[in-house]
Amino acid sequence: MTSPVDFRVKSPVYLALMHTDVTNRHGAKVTTSVTNMDIHDISRSVRTYGLAGYFIVTPIVDQHQLVGKILAHWRTERSQAYHPDRVEALSTVELFYSFAEVKAELLARHQHLPEVALTDARKIAGGVSYADYRQQLEQPTVPGRPVVLVFGTGWGIAPEFHAEVDRVLVPIEGPSASKGYNHLSVRSAVAVILDRLFGG
Amino acid sequence: MTSPVDFRVKSPVYLALMHTDVTNRHGAKVTTSVTNMDIHDISRSVRTYGLAGYFIVTPIVDQHQLVGKILAHWRTERSQAYHPDRVEALSTVELFYSFAEVKAELLARHQHLPEVALTDARKIAGGVSYADYRQQLEQPTVPGRPVVLVFGTGWGIAPEFHAEVDRVLVPIEGPSASKGYNHLSVRSAVAVILDRLFGG
Repeated sequence: MTSPVDFRVKSPVYLALMHTDVTNRHGAKVTTSVTNMDIHDISRSVRTYGLAGYFIVTPIVDQHQLVGKILAHWRTERSQAYHPDRVEALSTVELFYSFAEVKAELLARHQHLPEVALTDARKIAGGVSYADYRQQLEQPTVPGRPVVLVFGTGWGIAPEFHAEVDRVLVPIEGPSASKGYNHLSVRSAVAVILDRLFGG
Repeated sequence: MTSPVDFRVKSPVYLALMHTDVTNRHGAKVTTSVTNMDIHDISRSVRTYGLAGYFIVTPIVDQHQLVGKILAHWRTERSQAYHPDRVEALSTVELFYSFAEVKAELLARHQHLPEVALTDARKIAGGVSYADYRQQLEQPTVPGRPVVLVFGTGWGIAPEFHAEVDRVLVPIEGPSASKGYNHLSVRSAVAVILDRLFGG
């Protein structure tokens, strides 16, 4: 049982999937495409683990139109009748053109700029463990301040974005027997990280 | 550091993704199609968490041919040069026509029939927790006996399959705040469950 007071002071946590401020295999800054599977799989994880919202960030107008069409399809009565679980998951999705827009929206919504937590498959100095970050989320120092968990597409978040970042989470690792192979899809990484932070 | 002795007595763990012995939304037994995303995402999770293999089970000859073509594409020199991580992940994939065939193969390979562990989004009586099952896998009662973690596609494993099952794992759950919504994709459920059983 969670008391109403405990619940109210917890931070609202959002997930941002970045299609800008990311790199390609050569480390060059690029813009990536939104994929249908990322929309569906990640919204289902966001809803299952009770996050406040799922922000898809892309500067490309055509991609906003495309994703808008997909979301509109899933708002029809037929979808509601046939796939209510999918409709409920997709209701968490919002589209933004830039991370600056995400921050402005959260400031307007919660009267605080968000704490930005970066997840990355690469080791970055000062990474915090999932157990520690879970505890911090449960006992926030600034009650009501929103948190954004940032995930990069492509070959990961560009170094220039690190100026935005307050907290870096350590990479997900398998057992030592898997010999350092660490190439989860972003969909799988989201699911694992949400489970570590919010799983029952 | 894991000593050679510890490593040798651990059970080899396989994952089976079932496209037969599963149900549709109405509970009728059906055969589902293999999807490209299931091949890629799940093989990457299987490799990251160090499993012994990823068995895709479908009775449909056309699907074997299709998946065979996809895997052949990823065995070319060009793929090896451009996407070595994907090639390494996909090297875990093997195709089977039935679960009987899976069992026969594991008996031949390990001189023991496998322990069959079922994962399901629905609550089934006698479910074992991930913490308990993780401990059992680390201290097997029959050293060398293989384990198969079974995941259903469609609307989940058909009740008739339960006669094959030795262990049932409890459903994955989010926090109470997510109010009982539990609709992860099979790709996400695999990632979360492998992390709970084998994550570092």
